[in-house]
Amino acid sequence: MAEIIQLSASKKQSNDILETLRSEFSKDVASVEVMMRENMGSYVDLIPEIGAHIVKAGGKRLRPLLTLAGARITGYEGEKHIPLAAAVEFMHTATLLHDDVVDDSDMRRGMPTARMKWGNSASVLVGDFMLGQAFRMMVAAESLKALDVLSNAAAVIAEGEVMQLANLQNIDITEDNYLRVVEAKTAALFAAAIEVGAIVSGSPKNIIDALQSYGRNLGVAFQLIDDALDYANQNTSLGKNYGDDFREGKITLPVIMAFRRGDEEERAFWSRVIKSPSASNEDLDQAIQYLKKTKAIEETLDRASHYGHRAKDALALFPDSDTKEQLLELVDFCIRREH
Amino acid sequence: MAEIIQLSASKKQSNDILETLRSEFSKDVASVEVMMRENMGSYVDLIPEIGAHIVKAGGKRLRPLLTLAGARITGYEGEKHIPLAAAVEFMHTATLLHDDVVDDSDMRRGMPTARMKWGNSASVLVGDFMLGQAFRMMVAAESLKALDVLSNAAAVIAEGEVMQLANLQNIDITEDNYLRVVEAKTAALFAAAIEVGAIVSGSPKNIIDALQSYGRNLGVAFQLIDDALDYANQNTSLGKNYGDDFREGKITLPVIMAFRRGDEEERAFWSRVIKSPSASNEDLDQAIQYLKKTKAIEETLDRASHYGHRAKDALALFPDSDTKEQLLELVDFCIRREH
Repeated sequence: MAEIIQLSASKKQSNDILETLRSEFSKDVASVEVMMRENMGSYVDLIPEIGAHIVKAGGKRLRPLLTLAGARITGYEGEKHIPLAAAVEFMHTATLLHDDVVDDSDMRRGMPTARMKWGNSASVLVGDFMLGQAFRMMVAAESLKALDVLSNAAAVIAEGEVMQLANLQNIDITEDNYLRVVEAKTAALFAAAIEVGAIVSGSPKNIIDALQSYGRNLGVAFQLIDDALDYANQNTSLGKNYGDDFREGKITLPVIMAFRRGDEEERAFWSRVIKSPSASNEDLDQAIQYLKKTKAIEETLDRASHYGHRAKDALALFPDSDTKEQLLELVDFCIRREH
Repeated sequence: MAEIIQLSASKKQSNDILETLRSEFSKDVASVEVMMRENMGSYVDLIPEIGAHIVKAGGKRLRPLLTLAGARITGYEGEKHIPLAAAVEFMHTATLLHDDVVDDSDMRRGMPTARMKWGNSASVLVGDFMLGQAFRMMVAAESLKALDVLSNAAAVIAEGEVMQLANLQNIDITEDNYLRVVEAKTAALFAAAIEVGAIVSGSPKNIIDALQSYGRNLGVAFQLIDDALDYANQNTSLGKNYGDDFREGKITLPVIMAFRRGDEEERAFWSRVIKSPSASNEDLDQAIQYLKKTKAIEETLDRASHYGHRAKDALALFPDSDTKEQLLELVDFCIRREH
């Protein structure tokens, strides 16, 4: 078994803010859940079946919470943030269904992936269905501006995924290039999620921009932590599998850093294992050693922290409020989480 | 080699109407092509690369022509039908990219499929990108009503594909059940394509409904002919591969008819081959014999003709015009085509 890098984090404290948010927005959260269930309904049995599997697998509902928070912090009192929040989570879930196919993933959130239970074809098609339903919910919110933001995000996310695919096993990519992938595949939806909350409330441009910036930076921080966790966590009830990125030949920030900072021997190692169809546990052990030596994990966490600070600063123009306080705490959750 | 069932059709005559439509709408068609090319653009090289492959493979552009015709026959003089027509073709192409993955298809329109050249993952993700871009173009048309129709179609198409997947190798499905698949996976987009053309022109409900009905019935006819062609055509420069549906265990109307009308021995044959992972050429020969014996191909063509008549009747309330005449001819093209 490979050595585990421990991240300093208090899981209890971290989870508190998600609980707080869910309870602060409990009425809205309940409406979003009802709307999601309704929109997984179909006369084709396989759809609600896979839908139930996904709902059961849960997930943090981080993105729809951002939409709800974006609406609340801008004083929105209507109901259009509900379909938008549900649409955002559907977009996310559709992406996960397709990602599992693209990555050949067996497990997701501690459960077998839909593709393991129902096959790749069903995962692709039910993902398409969810994307279609997401757009139907967006249309129901009757905001062309929100539709513009979310349809743009849908294209950008796919673009990011294609870019990641093209970068697979390419050890030579730069940190800048990698950040473009992260901004597209992860941060674009965080940004859009909170932005549309501010859009339905008719907020002025500077407010919308500030929240979008918060979401984008939070998303980058979230993804970088995710990258670090792949090398730091064993299989947990919530997380993905330890070493998954490594075995799939995914070039993430820790690897980019360790490769660039390494000596000839280390670079040769990274070049070899990242291209190897299935790296061994010994390889993973060796990788962890090199990551430690080059301080690649700590510095990935530092980078995440940098984006976390930017996310917080983006909120500076908002007057003090409970929601603002919670959004600030959410940044800490994302950069300190263990899962 | 299996015996070929010849469909009585004049290819030249059939193609004339497509040429006529393309030349009648040449300015609009050119604008649609430009918009499609622009929206396949990306800083991620793989996207325009696959895009160029798809554009090169061509396709009849039947669905965007329906949008253009829907706008023209309702007297539209603006420009919003252009992004809608391009969006419709992008939705169609995204579906094809995903279908090829779901069906393990090697050839499409006489060329290797994208998944054969770039892999399943790229096909899934570039399909997602095209769907995202389709929605962006729809949003640019600034019609919530058109967005509603097309997002609904996107979900229904996926629902139809999932239903088809669930029906795979299930020889017991009824003609009614099969028609629901066809209405969802094929006819919904034909209907939506022409409907949004009428929507941007601000047409009254009865006009929109009539065109939607035309599109839906045309779509059903088109699919039934496609089903028949699978057993009637050898590999042509335009068509899919002879016997593909058969080898994939796809239950289409000819098979449903031949199974229900067959004796014990014939039913046993169909049950066996439809579940067989790779039916032989001898099986295909035998299937053709049984299809002939039960008149399943002719009667599939008769059913298609029935929907073709309904499509034509749906246009009865329109005064005579060139566009009306062309839409009527288009029905004949769809039910007589060889490819």
